Amino acid sequence: MGETPEFDSAFRARLKDLFIWRRDVRRFRHTALPGGALERLIEIACLAPSVGLSEPWRFVAVDDAEARRAVRSCFETCNGDALNGYSGERAALYARLKLEGLTEAPAQLAVFVERTPAQGHGLGRRTMPETIEYSAVMAIHTMWLAARAEGLGLGWISIFDPQRIAAILQAPPDWTLVGYLCIGYPAAEDDAPSLEREGWERREKPLLIRR
Amino acid sequence: MGETPEFDSAFRARLKDLFIWRRDVRRFRHTALPGGALERLIEIACLAPSVGLSEPWRFVAVDDAEARRAVRSCFETCNGDALNGYSGERAALYARLKLEGLTEAPAQLAVFVERTPAQGHGLGRRTMPETIEYSAVMAIHTMWLAARAEGLGLGWISIFDPQRIAAILQAPPDWTLVGYLCIGYPAAEDDAPSLEREGWERREKPLLIRR
Repeated sequence: MGETPEFDSAFRARLKDLFIWRRDVRRFRHTALPGGALERLIEIACLAPSVGLSEPWRFVAVDDAEARRAVRSCFETCNGDALNGYSGERAALYARLKLEGLTEAPAQLAVFVERTPAQGHGLGRRTMPETIEYSAVMAIHTMWLAARAEGLGLGWISIFDPQRIAAILQAPPDWTLVGYLCIGYPAAEDDAPSLEREGWERREKPLLIRR
Repeated sequence: MGETPEFDSAFRARLKDLFIWRRDVRRFRHTALPGGALERLIEIACLAPSVGLSEPWRFVAVDDAEARRAVRSCFETCNGDALNGYSGERAALYARLKLEGLTEAPAQLAVFVERTPAQGHGLGRRTMPETIEYSAVMAIHTMWLAARAEGLGLGWISIFDPQRIAAILQAPPDWTLVGYLCIGYPAAEDDAPSLEREGWERREKPLLIRR
C-alpha cells in the first residue's frame, strides 16, 4: 500500500472546477491526440469501481474510415427518426443542434460491456444485473474527467441503434454497447452545457426527499 | 462564463491519486457527517452529465430507524440468496466478506431515476433509454469522488431487491432505484479494492481492440 494522499481544500476547489468545466463536446479541433493518450486514458478509466471487481468494460478504438462512415450513417438515421418525433418550434430547435463530432474528432472509442463475465464471480449483480453496465459508465466518466484535466474533450453519443454499432464493429455476441465516445481537443471551453446555451433545456435544483 | 481554469500536471497527479484511493467502503466510523455535507455532495453530484440535460436523478436520504431496519432486512434476504448460489471454498469466502456498512454508516442515500422525465425533452434517449440510469450513475460517481476528496467514504450496495427498496422508501411509481449508498468516515484508507485484499478477485489488464 502506498502512502495515503492528503486532499486539501485547494485540490477540492480545483476538482469542483473540473466537474464544472467538463463538457459533452461536439465541436473538436482536428489536431491528433498526443501519442499514447488513448491508452493512458483507458488505463485511468479502469481505476473506476466495478461490481464485484468484474471490470466488465471492453474498449474498441474505431480507426477505420469505412467503419467510421457506417457509424456516422447509423447516427444520421437515428437522428432523423428523433427529429421526426418533434414538431413546431421544438423540431426547428432540434434540427439546429450539433449533437456529435463524428467528422472532426481524431479519436473514436466504443465502450461495450461483457454482460456475464466470469470475473467477479457474479458478486453484487444477482438482483441488479444492470450494475455491469453501470460499472462501464463509471469507467467512461473517469476517462471523461481525466481527459478534461489534460485539456481534451469527450463527447458521448447515444443517438445510435446499439445493435447496429455492435455489428459494424464486429463485437462478440455477448457484448452490449454502453457508449460511443468522440475524443479530441475541444474547439472552445465552457462552464455551461451546450444544450443550455442553445436554449434546449435548463438545469434545475435537485430533489432531495427525507424518509 | 467564468475564467477557464488551468489544470496542471500536479493537479492531474493528485486526481489520479483520487481515482486510486477511492474505495467502495463497507467499514465506517460512527462519527456523523459535518453539517450540510450531504446537501453539498448532492449539489456537486448534479454537475454530472445527463442525457439531454434531463437531470433524472432523485435523492432520498434514509434517516428513519424503521426504514433502515427494513432496508437491512432486504439486504440480508438478498445476500442469503446470493450465498446459496455459491458452493465449497467460494461459498466460505463469500460468507466471510463484509459487503455493506448499513449498521455503522451515519448517512444513507438512495438514488433513483425518474425514467421518463419531461426535462430534456427526450433528447438522446430514444434508442438508448438506459442513458437515463447512466446519468444517475455518473452523478453517484461524481459524489463518490467529491466525498473521498473530503475524507469521506462511500459504499454502493446493489445486493437488494430494487422494487422492495422503492416500496420501503415510498418512491413514486415511475422511479427506479439505481444505487443505495452508505456515506461516512471510513475505518481505514486503502489503495486496493477490498475484494482484492480479501482474495475474491483480482484486477486485470483492460481489453482494447482496434477496428
